[in-house]
Amino acid sequence: MPSDTPQPAFVLVRPQMGENVGAAARAMWNFGLDRMRIVAPRDGWPNPKAVAMASGAGRLLDEARLAEDLAGAIEDCDFVFATTARPRELTKPVYSPEAAMKLAAEKMAAGEKVAVMFGPERAGLENEDIARANAIISVPVNPEFASLNLGQCVLLTAYEWRRQVTDVAPVVTDLGKSDWASHADVDTLVNHYEDRLDDAGFFFPPDKAPSMKTVFRNMFSRMPLTRADVQMLHGIMRQMVRWKEKRD
Amino acid sequence: MPSDTPQPAFVLVRPQMGENVGAAARAMWNFGLDRMRIVAPRDGWPNPKAVAMASGAGRLLDEARLAEDLAGAIEDCDFVFATTARPRELTKPVYSPEAAMKLAAEKMAAGEKVAVMFGPERAGLENEDIARANAIISVPVNPEFASLNLGQCVLLTAYEWRRQVTDVAPVVTDLGKSDWASHADVDTLVNHYEDRLDDAGFFFPPDKAPSMKTVFRNMFSRMPLTRADVQMLHGIMRQMVRWKEKRD
Repeated sequence: MPSDTPQPAFVLVRPQMGENVGAAARAMWNFGLDRMRIVAPRDGWPNPKAVAMASGAGRLLDEARLAEDLAGAIEDCDFVFATTARPRELTKPVYSPEAAMKLAAEKMAAGEKVAVMFGPERAGLENEDIARANAIISVPVNPEFASLNLGQCVLLTAYEWRRQVTDVAPVVTDLGKSDWASHADVDTLVNHYEDRLDDAGFFFPPDKAPSMKTVFRNMFSRMPLTRADVQMLHGIMRQMVRWKEKRD
Repeated sequence: MPSDTPQPAFVLVRPQMGENVGAAARAMWNFGLDRMRIVAPRDGWPNPKAVAMASGAGRLLDEARLAEDLAGAIEDCDFVFATTARPRELTKPVYSPEAAMKLAAEKMAAGEKVAVMFGPERAGLENEDIARANAIISVPVNPEFASLNLGQCVLLTAYEWRRQVTDVAPVVTDLGKSDWASHADVDTLVNHYEDRLDDAGFFFPPDKAPSMKTVFRNMFSRMPLTRADVQMLHGIMRQMVRWKEKRD
């Protein structure tokens, strides 16, 4: 059973090698998509090579909807994107993958059915296929080297879908497992170091001591220290003192 | 010679199969990146399988900087990201690929050297490797199926780099080649149709005619028509009239 998350269908149009269909299934499922449609696969269907390659995402192949032609594959869709490397002479709006998946999410939220078409490996979608699309998706590749394969194109589009519909935190510094040192912990640590470094004659000459201490405190305040880090730093200083005392 | 675009170095740490190094080179160059560094490749270097797979991006392999260990590979870098599927117990900020490449672009604009490390295919980076990084990049994959391979991880990171540093238009509807119909063109077209459809008795009953005409005009105004489309639509109507007259 496909998952019940609303999502666009990914339509592989006349794919050639089974391996690539399997790789596309994996790429989709990596980003939580599991509605695949397949139009007239060159080597027939089911395809054992696709199954071998899809390992872990084989369910998508079992559940894939097979169609004889593109019209049949998208007949229930309200809005269809065509992916193509070079938007050709056909007059269609051209979306970045990001903008396209944003639009797809908006349309689906409004109850529309959305699909994305991917062309055969060798030559991509024909103009005749693209003429059936409402809009084009073009990945912003290096114009000197635009050689995305089918699986890569599916991967990037699926990635952008996931970015649009899940809350991807840009930065997580507050890892669940970590136990950050409080300001008080850091203050105690800095005081400990200052005292011992005073004993050791580190803050020299005396007129420079206040600014040296400020720099020192600032350094520790800037560091994202855990409690464990602070304990270790206390231990290091204690050990240095012990070592020194042993020598005395 | 590598391109002179400022860019992060991508560091492949102990890669196993040459094919995957080649695929990583292609993925980088697809998005305009060409500074590869390679740490202790399992099968030695140079690697003919890497060269075969890299076709079109082989220059990156020729120019790749080889290092015996990770420390040597990143010694000149000011800020290093580690890519990992599951951020582990190490306390490090974790960035989405997007946020990471944005930060990388900012740091490089400020003159810092940035690198991104990718682990070996089988198990990814070791904790010992990650301990050398300033921050972690984690791709927001489907938690039920997180199976990105080396080439895919390089591809997504390179894609996000390109998104951050090139002006990717979210939507292009104003294609260079297309010659959009002006409002006047559309007005002339609608008038042409209205006149002929009046002759044909389409707007019936008479009291509904004004609202039917409004709906009709609105439909054409909503469509993104080129001049060529408008000419074709004029031609269709003219031909229908000719056809009808022939029959008379």
